[in-house]
Amino acid sequence: MKIVILGGGGMIGHKLAQEIKRGKVGLKNNSVILHDLFFSNDSEALGEIRVGDISKPGEIESIAKERPDLIYHLASVVSGQAETDFDIGWEVNFHPTWRLLNAIKNEHLASAGGYRPKFIFTSSIAVFGGPYPEKISDDFLCAPQTSYGAQKLICETMISDFSRKGFIDGISMRLPTVCVRPGKANLAASSFFSSIIREPLNNMEAILPVRDSVRHWHVSPRSAIGFLVYAASLNFDKLGARRSLNLPGVSCTVAEQIEALRAVAGQEAVDRIKFVEDKKVTRIVSGWPENFDPVRALGLGFVAEKDFSEIIMAYIEDDLRPISN
Amino acid sequence: MKIVILGGGGMIGHKLAQEIKRGKVGLKNNSVILHDLFFSNDSEALGEIRVGDISKPGEIESIAKERPDLIYHLASVVSGQAETDFDIGWEVNFHPTWRLLNAIKNEHLASAGGYRPKFIFTSSIAVFGGPYPEKISDDFLCAPQTSYGAQKLICETMISDFSRKGFIDGISMRLPTVCVRPGKANLAASSFFSSIIREPLNNMEAILPVRDSVRHWHVSPRSAIGFLVYAASLNFDKLGARRSLNLPGVSCTVAEQIEALRAVAGQEAVDRIKFVEDKKVTRIVSGWPENFDPVRALGLGFVAEKDFSEIIMAYIEDDLRPISN
Repeated sequence: MKIVILGGGGMIGHKLAQEIKRGKVGLKNNSVILHDLFFSNDSEALGEIRVGDISKPGEIESIAKERPDLIYHLASVVSGQAETDFDIGWEVNFHPTWRLLNAIKNEHLASAGGYRPKFIFTSSIAVFGGPYPEKISDDFLCAPQTSYGAQKLICETMISDFSRKGFIDGISMRLPTVCVRPGKANLAASSFFSSIIREPLNNMEAILPVRDSVRHWHVSPRSAIGFLVYAASLNFDKLGARRSLNLPGVSCTVAEQIEALRAVAGQEAVDRIKFVEDKKVTRIVSGWPENFDPVRALGLGFVAEKDFSEIIMAYIEDDLRPISN
Repeated sequence: MKIVILGGGGMIGHKLAQEIKRGKVGLKNNSVILHDLFFSNDSEALGEIRVGDISKPGEIESIAKERPDLIYHLASVVSGQAETDFDIGWEVNFHPTWRLLNAIKNEHLASAGGYRPKFIFTSSIAVFGGPYPEKISDDFLCAPQTSYGAQKLICETMISDFSRKGFIDGISMRLPTVCVRPGKANLAASSFFSSIIREPLNNMEAILPVRDSVRHWHVSPRSAIGFLVYAASLNFDKLGARRSLNLPGVSCTVAEQIEALRAVAGQEAVDRIKFVEDKKVTRIVSGWPENFDPVRALGLGFVAEKDFSEIIMAYIEDDLRPISN
């Protein structure tokens, strides 16, 4: 089985490739292509490395020409960059997906319908925009309030239509915020959700930029990878006509995150969190979804953590190691 | 005020241009450009005629370069063609809108933010897909089940994001099915909703291809034009962050349409309708929305007919004339 991971150099792509190497996806003798702008040195053991820029014309079409059986499309610039660099956001998060789908359609037609890859796209809860109900149901509208969310919604819509026409067999997976992310803090507005747990567990200080009453929707990297692995085995006909799926997660407040940290690692860890309000981050986060009722995904067998303690334990078991500076 | 109507040669575009000429939109001394592939001879009195194909590179960018104050974007291939000719659907209903918005953004940036046109886009209830609630609320999800609906949703999403960024001041208007359309029957699956009224009023026979229990969501051409005229005067800040709007209409069954025809034109007219079931049309129509609860649009002042009799009267007053063969 030929598998391509677009965005294979990122945290999720790397962990996914590890699971594929462990035989968790498809048949045993997989050939795996990892495509991204950058890779860490330890990626080479996981598959064939392709360094490239999907926003360059021809780059992503060449992927389609190889007719992979399964395409994981995780490649995008993050929310913050798509908001700051408007053109780059659309050039990376929108046009290449169109070109890829169109190129796959051409392969499908050239093979008289014999080529129809499974296509798994990581979308985001950024497709939603307020005002929200207490819990977002599976039939709540998408009204993105960021360019990143708009680009994800547009890709979802294309993937649904190309699936309906039989050119691909696609799914768009609206992942909760992935937390606790390993590694260093990044510039994303959501970064603190991870760092207030990760840094104390690594004996470092963390800044909390919002009030602890803020509620958000989380999933561990372990469960996010679990969703992507499970999707590869799922018969997408079970999705019916709606190919976009709200995935399960844990809804909790920052105060509940901190309580879970205290239960796992003690008051000493909690004392390393310093509250320094950042009004810009507070304003951005106030527009984010807080809770979902993902009935369809649960019915299809997708499973996430039950509470934030489990998310912390997943980090400790899978990723805890000193942060290099 | 410089006004451009993309799709100015179609039925809606033509009637809209007539209203503009009557001074119903903006200031008195409007300059109006009508752009389309084809025009009837009587269009020339309504504005400057531009014959062109928006799917040709450069065509739509040249519109942006003229910096119109108000752009009505009505241009698209119809639902049936977008479904049959997959590539043409995306080439006409999707790419030109992206290129237009991007070109407007460039004009905006070149003018240091001084150029920001009002942008009124005709979307469609085809952005929705079943299963439906009894009435579709303003926060019901979009899950299009046709390429046409997918293309409209994608354009809506781009228009929202370009508006949020301040490059345009845009609205996407999800029109009900426009009925009673003047002129001859066309190949659209929805054509019979008009022809079962129009043909009997013109002493001609009409075919009803579905059972009369079918319920659908209608608006007269007069009200549809009224929406477009009213939108030009509306402060879009009132829309908040959600720039797509479900417009009001009349929900009724085919049986109720026929009863209204009987009340207006007598049993003789009704006797000209022949039921000849078309399973393909029946299947297509079974996926369409039946009823809405357009609270936001009503609150903003958009007004449609109260019942189907009013829709018939609008046709008789505005459009009734013998059909030429």
